[in-house]
Amino acid sequence: MKFKRSERLVFMTQHLTSHPNELIPLTYFVNKFTQAKSSISEDIRILKDVFENEGIGTVQTTAGAGGGVTFQPRISDARARETVGRFMEILKMKDRLLPGGYLYMSDIMGNPHLMSDIGELIATMYGDETIDAVVTVATKGISLANAVARKLNVPVAVIRKDNKVTEGSTVSVNYVSGSTRKIETMVLSKRTLKEGSKVLVVDDFLRAGGSISGVINLMEEFSAEVVGVSVLVEAKQVENRRFTDYTSLLKVSEIDEFNQSFLVEEGNCLEYIERRKEVSNSQSKEF
Amino acid sequence: MKFKRSERLVFMTQHLTSHPNELIPLTYFVNKFTQAKSSISEDIRILKDVFENEGIGTVQTTAGAGGGVTFQPRISDARARETVGRFMEILKMKDRLLPGGYLYMSDIMGNPHLMSDIGELIATMYGDETIDAVVTVATKGISLANAVARKLNVPVAVIRKDNKVTEGSTVSVNYVSGSTRKIETMVLSKRTLKEGSKVLVVDDFLRAGGSISGVINLMEEFSAEVVGVSVLVEAKQVENRRFTDYTSLLKVSEIDEFNQSFLVEEGNCLEYIERRKEVSNSQSKEF
Repeated sequence: MKFKRSERLVFMTQHLTSHPNELIPLTYFVNKFTQAKSSISEDIRILKDVFENEGIGTVQTTAGAGGGVTFQPRISDARARETVGRFMEILKMKDRLLPGGYLYMSDIMGNPHLMSDIGELIATMYGDETIDAVVTVATKGISLANAVARKLNVPVAVIRKDNKVTEGSTVSVNYVSGSTRKIETMVLSKRTLKEGSKVLVVDDFLRAGGSISGVINLMEEFSAEVVGVSVLVEAKQVENRRFTDYTSLLKVSEIDEFNQSFLVEEGNCLEYIERRKEVSNSQSKEF
Repeated sequence: MKFKRSERLVFMTQHLTSHPNELIPLTYFVNKFTQAKSSISEDIRILKDVFENEGIGTVQTTAGAGGGVTFQPRISDARARETVGRFMEILKMKDRLLPGGYLYMSDIMGNPHLMSDIGELIATMYGDETIDAVVTVATKGISLANAVARKLNVPVAVIRKDNKVTEGSTVSVNYVSGSTRKIETMVLSKRTLKEGSKVLVVDDFLRAGGSISGVINLMEEFSAEVVGVSVLVEAKQVENRRFTDYTSLLKVSEIDEFNQSFLVEEGNCLEYIERRKEVSNSQSKEF
């Protein structure tokens, strides 16, 4: 069967975007389409240009016998701003405030389209780092961790606050919950995370940071290196957080339960992307 | 800016596959490419043929002023078998057996690529039903629910076994855990699921079925209709399950803790796809 260029491009686009951060050998397409390598390379050039011009991602090609092509989700600044803006509109929606000043966010975590877009955003932020796993704390963070891990093509490790029988042997740490001031326990199954992994920690909400401090301590038990911490929403007016190096998509403040109102503003994620670009530009100038 | 057909196809393929089960107005592409509707329709025809021939999905077009195009993930039988086969290989891996005859599956639930493929499979099985939400029970089921919901383009509702403060008012039911015979509670936030929704229930493991029976009872409290129940793995030699109408990808039996061995075979998901096709063929013949 002979494929036209237009048909090849449809297949290749679908295949690459459904295998993000995975090296696809050029021979895979050469064999599938019984087409010369030069034609496949030309197909990839077209695809790469569209992906880059449309702010979808980058397409890396590696030469040689084991050569191939890798699609890396890297959204443009415009797309990143659009995602943050859409998330802000949703977070601002009325009736989100619960007793105790908590924000209802289950609809957000259960919105797979929004999660997927946010996954692309966070993968764009941390995609140039070496990351072996995305780590989160059950329950809320799981949807976000899946979305990010899918785009980075790495496994997810879920830390639990209960010790389930179906996890095998575990490592646990105690931490002080920032909001309740109670001492709690979090556990991670030993076989879920390899010793010495480089991990990206994600979570839905950052208040006092007790839970993420616990994660950082637990990661030490696994000799894991925390490459970054990223949260969807942070509470702004919290002082003395036990760690300061993290990114957030949105910040909330002035939570007023009585009037059912709160302020939402952008977090530092767009600045983070900007800063990363400057670093990578100045590095490439040096060469 | 002028786009060539090849460039349009790359963009359209990426856009449609990243918006599954969503009607994209034809005018969106017409305006983006400043191209006549007839050319865009021809693009879509090419795309549709590749998607169908390659077993990726179907592309539905609707005519008229509000007309547009919808990509529906519907994988071919060959792809479905491949996914089940790959999952079986992973499940058969050594050292999965934990004390008490439980199977360690956190690595499977934390494998976003496998989850995404399984999500496509389950979306293929239930994609022709009207589904308003995917429902699961924390913690393990969440990754699967996300993957399926992403392909169906519907929200996820996560039932919890603890009553978290950040959920607002909830509805709860008691259920008897099949394995421990203890009475437990599961809760779902009222606002997470609309009354009268049609839901697909998914979970990682089906043993005695106590937990899924609880979900079915809880769904009654929401006047929700359970359109289907699908699990990744079922334990085969369980009698008197409280419900019988479900699908599974794999079945395990002869769990032998002493010898660290168990049998894995295919569940009924491939048969289910087959049966659905026969039903839909005989229905279309009637017209």
